[in-house]
Amino acid sequence: MNVNGRHYRTIWLKETDNTVVQIINQLALPHSFDIIDLRTVEDVRRAIKDMYVRGAGLIGATAAYGMYLAVLEAGEGSFTADLLRSAEILKNTRPTASNLAWAVDRMLVTLTDSADLPPAKKCEDARIEAQAIADEDADSCRRIGIHGVEIIKAIAARKKGETVNILTHCNAGWLAFVDYGSALSPVYAAHDAGLKVHVWVDETRPRNQGASLTAWELGQHGVPHDLIPDNAGGHLMQHGMVDMVITGADRVTRCGDAANKIGTYLKAAAAKENGVPFYVALPSSTFDFNMRDGLKEIPIEERDASEVRFVSGKTKSGALKTVQICPDSTSARNWGFDVTPARYITGLISERGICEASEQGILGLYPEQAAGQGCTHG
Amino acid sequence: MNVNGRHYRTIWLKETDNTVVQIINQLALPHSFDIIDLRTVEDVRRAIKDMYVRGAGLIGATAAYGMYLAVLEAGEGSFTADLLRSAEILKNTRPTASNLAWAVDRMLVTLTDSADLPPAKKCEDARIEAQAIADEDADSCRRIGIHGVEIIKAIAARKKGETVNILTHCNAGWLAFVDYGSALSPVYAAHDAGLKVHVWVDETRPRNQGASLTAWELGQHGVPHDLIPDNAGGHLMQHGMVDMVITGADRVTRCGDAANKIGTYLKAAAAKENGVPFYVALPSSTFDFNMRDGLKEIPIEERDASEVRFVSGKTKSGALKTVQICPDSTSARNWGFDVTPARYITGLISERGICEASEQGILGLYPEQAAGQGCTHG
Repeated sequence: MNVNGRHYRTIWLKETDNTVVQIINQLALPHSFDIIDLRTVEDVRRAIKDMYVRGAGLIGATAAYGMYLAVLEAGEGSFTADLLRSAEILKNTRPTASNLAWAVDRMLVTLTDSADLPPAKKCEDARIEAQAIADEDADSCRRIGIHGVEIIKAIAARKKGETVNILTHCNAGWLAFVDYGSALSPVYAAHDAGLKVHVWVDETRPRNQGASLTAWELGQHGVPHDLIPDNAGGHLMQHGMVDMVITGADRVTRCGDAANKIGTYLKAAAAKENGVPFYVALPSSTFDFNMRDGLKEIPIEERDASEVRFVSGKTKSGALKTVQICPDSTSARNWGFDVTPARYITGLISERGICEASEQGILGLYPEQAAGQGCTHG
Repeated sequence: MNVNGRHYRTIWLKETDNTVVQIINQLALPHSFDIIDLRTVEDVRRAIKDMYVRGAGLIGATAAYGMYLAVLEAGEGSFTADLLRSAEILKNTRPTASNLAWAVDRMLVTLTDSADLPPAKKCEDARIEAQAIADEDADSCRRIGIHGVEIIKAIAARKKGETVNILTHCNAGWLAFVDYGSALSPVYAAHDAGLKVHVWVDETRPRNQGASLTAWELGQHGVPHDLIPDNAGGHLMQHGMVDMVITGADRVTRCGDAANKIGTYLKAAAAKENGVPFYVALPSSTFDFNMRDGLKEIPIEERDASEVRFVSGKTKSGALKTVQICPDSTSARNWGFDVTPARYITGLISERGICEASEQGILGLYPEQAAGQGCTHG
């Protein structure tokens, strides 16, 4: 999407030197827009591990480009061994991100086929495959937008052209993928089609991805929005100020339970109480067809308490500082995600279309996953 | 309650000079514990206006002591005029706090009776009345604890002595009153009675009263607790980690709808979905018997967006700093309160006892308010 009026993806090959991968440094957002060069597997490892890039789709694409750099680095005589070592290094950066291992393995399959080709051809094959992975991610997200915008259009028609107010939690925009995003893709599609949309941006404590990333990307693309505390959404829904909620997901079971950033469930419960439609947007890769009951089966990561005890931002003088918001002796707990049971979800939006958040609905879009028992909860 | 092992109230007369009012500077909490002397009506005006003191009960008591200082300042010949001017100054500090006007008016009634008495007697009458107002506030809160602890005892008995986990939002502890608090009074009573309790402290964005005040006062009194982001409560309830929710209130209608800090309603909705009891604790003065439908009738203050865009805290070097968490151009909205409809509330706890959150339940405790029509919503 656009930054300062120019189109960007979150990752690309440098225009003047296609052995260099470039990314947006998401750690510097929203206070500065820095582009970083990644020239080695070690650069890529650090970029993923230290969260210069984040979001399932973008992590996968970054790892794919990392494997391309691994080919450039690999010794002539030790090609396969070097490649496997790089694959291991990359996979170990963030072990829970499923797209990461998937992208690295897909690169390995391609490169095993290329093992006996001349070096220049190996590099070309690797580059083409990494770009294909990035392109496919962007294209999936673009198609989520094409499907999802129909929901917004229907609300806009019902409101006779009045602004459609959409609440989102965390960042599931283009910064989390290669382009477009999942939850925000329908929003961008609506805005680009000239529909009047306005986004309520949950700040999303403790890491404030809403305040720092969602607000930034919507602002850069020109989509009207307001930042709100995570506490405000219920009040807005009670007063008819939210027409729909749309979030991303970290994992969705075959029965439609959705794990997403902590706090998503509170918005879903309030949406149900107030009759506000609640949608979850996700690329197909986010489905976990092996799981059924999200509350029982999806493991919820507990993260460091310091994320709750401290907040980072920019001081008046422009310096980045971290401040402690509680007494020195206060302990904190910090679960990263929660699970919204399927019964709270109006629909799921993937690149294949929109379906009910139920096994039947999901298998309608994914008939190849039909083997297996039915859901035991509703 | 206790600070560094010693009992404090939030406001008192200086031991060595009863013409000086002392308060805890709540703006400095939790990073330092400062006691401030108030010697003039102007000192009191500033203390209320700039939020060195906050919370309905404490604001009322501070205004009462302010009227005592007004008597010390008033001219012999212009006693009544001076007093009325001071009353006006104090009432204008925070126009929405109903306890403020109530306390000032009560002092005026007493002092009108004293107008012709000798100066020393006027001062004594004013001092006694201000102390009575403070004592009554503390005593109301103490009795909220006596009633509310029975709920905690019942849960503890059912859990066979396992720790009772209580979630609270914002600060409705002793710092908001003269002593004990409303929501936290039953918690202190339980802890002091040797029951095992643990409090989940919502940080309560945007002003973080949970992180800065509730965590501090629970810590000082030795009550086990953990700070959590406002986003976490739903997840905790889904997993059986919350036995009850208890919050304070800013206004409760005769039908039982409760206005409280923004975000309270999201917890109430999740509590209802998960069968977690949700209690609201309040002194009688917080009832507004003239209102019925809280969602329609209670005005919700919209506060400055800067509270959302910035967060304050302590840097590593110990300095107090404010940091900006969003892009420079991001706009924000900041409603201070939301309304939890009566049907979400398991019970109301006041100094008179516990009742159902309904007109019938409330009038059972307040039969003198029985005149008026029934509620039109449920």
